[in-house]
Amino acid sequence: MDISTLSEKINHTLSTLRYGENPSELYEPIRYIMALGGKRIRPLLVLLAAKMYNEDVEKTLLPAAGLEVFHNFTLMHDDIMDKAPLRRGKQTVHEKWNANTAILSGDVMLVRAYQLMMQVAPDKLPKVLELFSQTAAEVCEGQQLDMNFEQRGEVSIQEYIQMITLKTAVLLGFSLELGAILQGAPDSDAEHLKAFGDNVGIAFQLRDDLLDVYGDKDKFGKQVGGDILSDKKTFLMLTALEQANETQLQTILGWRDRTGAETAEEKVKAITQVYDELHIRQQTEQQIDLYFRSALQHLDAVQVPDERKATLRGLALQLMERDS
Amino acid sequence: MDISTLSEKINHTLSTLRYGENPSELYEPIRYIMALGGKRIRPLLVLLAAKMYNEDVEKTLLPAAGLEVFHNFTLMHDDIMDKAPLRRGKQTVHEKWNANTAILSGDVMLVRAYQLMMQVAPDKLPKVLELFSQTAAEVCEGQQLDMNFEQRGEVSIQEYIQMITLKTAVLLGFSLELGAILQGAPDSDAEHLKAFGDNVGIAFQLRDDLLDVYGDKDKFGKQVGGDILSDKKTFLMLTALEQANETQLQTILGWRDRTGAETAEEKVKAITQVYDELHIRQQTEQQIDLYFRSALQHLDAVQVPDERKATLRGLALQLMERDS
Repeated sequence: MDISTLSEKINHTLSTLRYGENPSELYEPIRYIMALGGKRIRPLLVLLAAKMYNEDVEKTLLPAAGLEVFHNFTLMHDDIMDKAPLRRGKQTVHEKWNANTAILSGDVMLVRAYQLMMQVAPDKLPKVLELFSQTAAEVCEGQQLDMNFEQRGEVSIQEYIQMITLKTAVLLGFSLELGAILQGAPDSDAEHLKAFGDNVGIAFQLRDDLLDVYGDKDKFGKQVGGDILSDKKTFLMLTALEQANETQLQTILGWRDRTGAETAEEKVKAITQVYDELHIRQQTEQQIDLYFRSALQHLDAVQVPDERKATLRGLALQLMERDS
Repeated sequence: MDISTLSEKINHTLSTLRYGENPSELYEPIRYIMALGGKRIRPLLVLLAAKMYNEDVEKTLLPAAGLEVFHNFTLMHDDIMDKAPLRRGKQTVHEKWNANTAILSGDVMLVRAYQLMMQVAPDKLPKVLELFSQTAAEVCEGQQLDMNFEQRGEVSIQEYIQMITLKTAVLLGFSLELGAILQGAPDSDAEHLKAFGDNVGIAFQLRDDLLDVYGDKDKFGKQVGGDILSDKKTFLMLTALEQANETQLQTILGWRDRTGAETAEEKVKAITQVYDELHIRQQTEQQIDLYFRSALQHLDAVQVPDERKATLRGLALQLMERDS
């Protein structure tokens, strides 16, 4: 069973979900955001981990779908907080309807996510729900830290890593852990898969920071330098701030808060030059490599034959756009 | 064990809850809203129902506390949507901090509510969580209907009753049902207690509508006529709209949207006069009586000796401020 077969199963499951009908103002936004698509990476990770222990993954489909509903709940609420106009090229829920609708539809999505997560064997229920709840709270903590950091002057690299771990990585880790738990994998396997997912998640987020500056414009699909233009405290920026000499620091601080379109190109060029001088690209790649290696070590420690890990390993490599 | 002893137990349990520490911006608002107090009526209902079956109510304390956390989560989010400046005489969370914080702290409160609700015997877990989730979604539906009705011209009495049932009553009903389920009560008893709570909840809300116009100012503690001044579609107003003759309708519609302080007294007087002409007070009292009688019939149907129902019956009478 390859990834595209698993993806079909996930999409079919998602298409069968019924969130509710009345009042339509509450439930229509849920159908809307769930129909915007996306890679459905979290349910896919559930199924890939599950498949390592049992080819039959049917019983993991509903909780896997619950993770996707949960993820989209976080997007709906984050978009309000970030005042984001667009999500996957379409109007965000709070733009298409209003903030109140996005708050309340999001709330009921979290309830629906729990209801899907509850569709597991009774003996697994306490553990699954406790780990899910813990992860859900961590994701909220990550979002709060992210908002805090926007307001704060200084943020350390360590704090930044903690923030992306909570906001993004732990849910990927839990997805794999969930798949393992549902198939009765040994605890140590479930924990190594969780650690694999956490580390891949951190590496993936750092790579996202890197590509914003050094990515191939056509491939990346976003404006190069968007993070620089919006003064975002990325791994690159925080590393540069830690290592900059007086002149470089003046350059960075001199450009801060200057978000005008007419000087955009010049700003990206100036900051990128500081990054180049400090070898920020290489340092970031080194960090990514560290997290990715750590991830693979955890995957190695999982006690199943290597051939059963091949798809998951392949997906991770593909996410990192690496050949080996 | 009387009500004050049970209340002490509840308050003690609530005081032992730990929501989280970091980031403080996420968890401080939870401690703040939980410290604002309130009657803790929902956990009290859990314990009163539980006590009908077993004097030992210890195992119901954490899920009962979960209902109070859930209730305060809905208050935190509702206050954002209603742009309410005050809650129990203090600044609302979105006023003291900001709307983003109130959204995200509320989200994590819903997660914490689930975690407390999970503290039940494993064999009860699936049923408790499914009923809780269903109730939680219904409460969201009620809030959405309430917001819809503010925007809509016509609302029927039936729609209004459905709205207050979902927004307020079902959580009171579930509180009693939960207490019964946790003590292993027969299904039919749990269902009758749920119906008792639902009906008391509706009666209580209608009474709230009534007191806003006909209440004793000193006793009620709110400005008399507040609902009239804000053009709120209460049971009284909707009944009046259905039964008004041409002149009375002109009076009501003529005052609509006129919210100035200088004409406030005149407005309350004019609308109250229409109510008086249509005997709205008596009609509302009749409705309250119907729901309250229905509640008591369900309590009668519960298969425990009458003396075990006395405290619950007494509380309901007290809530309705009636002697019998």
